[in-house]
Amino acid sequence: MYCYFCFNIEPMEKFALIVAGGSGTRMGSDIPKQFLVLNGKPILMHTIERFSDYDPAFKITLVLPSAQFAYWRELCTRHKFTIAHQLVAGGNSRFQSVKNGLNALPEQGIVFIHDGVRPLVSAATIRNCEKTARQSGNALPVVPVIESIRQITADGGSQHADRSQYRLVQTPQTFRLGLIKKAFQQEESPLFTDDASVCEAMGETINLVTGNPENIKITQPSDLKIAALFLEGLTPAPK
Amino acid sequence: MYCYFCFNIEPMEKFALIVAGGSGTRMGSDIPKQFLVLNGKPILMHTIERFSDYDPAFKITLVLPSAQFAYWRELCTRHKFTIAHQLVAGGNSRFQSVKNGLNALPEQGIVFIHDGVRPLVSAATIRNCEKTARQSGNALPVVPVIESIRQITADGGSQHADRSQYRLVQTPQTFRLGLIKKAFQQEESPLFTDDASVCEAMGETINLVTGNPENIKITQPSDLKIAALFLEGLTPAPK
Repeated sequence: MYCYFCFNIEPMEKFALIVAGGSGTRMGSDIPKQFLVLNGKPILMHTIERFSDYDPAFKITLVLPSAQFAYWRELCTRHKFTIAHQLVAGGNSRFQSVKNGLNALPEQGIVFIHDGVRPLVSAATIRNCEKTARQSGNALPVVPVIESIRQITADGGSQHADRSQYRLVQTPQTFRLGLIKKAFQQEESPLFTDDASVCEAMGETINLVTGNPENIKITQPSDLKIAALFLEGLTPAPK
Repeated sequence: MYCYFCFNIEPMEKFALIVAGGSGTRMGSDIPKQFLVLNGKPILMHTIERFSDYDPAFKITLVLPSAQFAYWRELCTRHKFTIAHQLVAGGNSRFQSVKNGLNALPEQGIVFIHDGVRPLVSAATIRNCEKTARQSGNALPVVPVIESIRQITADGGSQHADRSQYRLVQTPQTFRLGLIKKAFQQEESPLFTDDASVCEAMGETINLVTGNPENIKITQPSDLKIAALFLEGLTPAPK
């Protein structure tokens, strides 16, 4: 089936799978970091809005520890947050949480698996991921390494590494649903540090696309202040 | 000769070699980035103060493009900046600029080669560098890689890399003067991406020490805002 407007691009439903399993201990706070307030509302609401603003047709699934469901619903009421989304209970690891989320999605479409604490993903990054994942099955947003880097060697020493040969990995890690659901049938491994590595373990080639430098993962208190700065400057890119 | 107080540590003069060659084009500004104003004064003054605050005995050399000497002196007058320092003209590359700076220093002592646009180096980082460079000849401050990383492969693809095996490199890169002066006698090479790589090319083992995450290099406008945030929270660590 083809789109009546663009003819050559297969229309596929788009799913945002927002994964938020944080317990808050690293932020020096009792509040899980996804609920910390950024410019007047919880981080997680900003994150969901990035996808909904990009395309209101996005179907949104939020993976949260089930113990946080009631609190999240209370926050939604308090902040009059009305963007439709389904809630799925997280697992004991990020792998299990993503797997639970994927199990709640259909077999067809494109899924954008995104960290709940990355509220600054740009429309351009989402668009880059969508385009490449539609064409090639997967897309991984990355940014250059700005600082010089060194690699630790087997003898405990270190050596210069060419930073131009490395990229920093962001989310949304984006996949055709059939492909990533199959990948998550594999047994969990410590080598699975992100969703792309799960996909790669099946022999898939991962496609890198351009992310945005502001798309930071909020993991410590200073990140929250930086995110507030970036949020001021975030303007939706043309679609 | 030994210190009367600690007996077993050879006293050595400490030199800060602050290198600022920026022309400002990357900041979207006509003002070279080292002169941009952070909390009321040029970045470069903050950077110099980090060393002077750590130990007023620091002898400070500032390497600047000679075309900027007059402007810098004017800024010093305007901001009543009185920390003593010698000015040395920069060269056509960072390597040449550092070499010019080293040529203006004596044969004995410890030199802290530092980016002019890293105004947020902490006292703890300087202390870590000093201690290790005194003991072992050199010290390179590094911080962990927080994001997942991928390595570009020869075929243009990419593969997952274990971030725990990498470090992001900062300054001050710190050396015994005799050692680093000898290293800079080598012919300039594109492989020399920082001062440690120049030293390493002589077969020296580089010693990694703990840097501070706030010690960012200001290269784009958003960095200046982040630096202002970090500056608020910067408290001198006990020496």
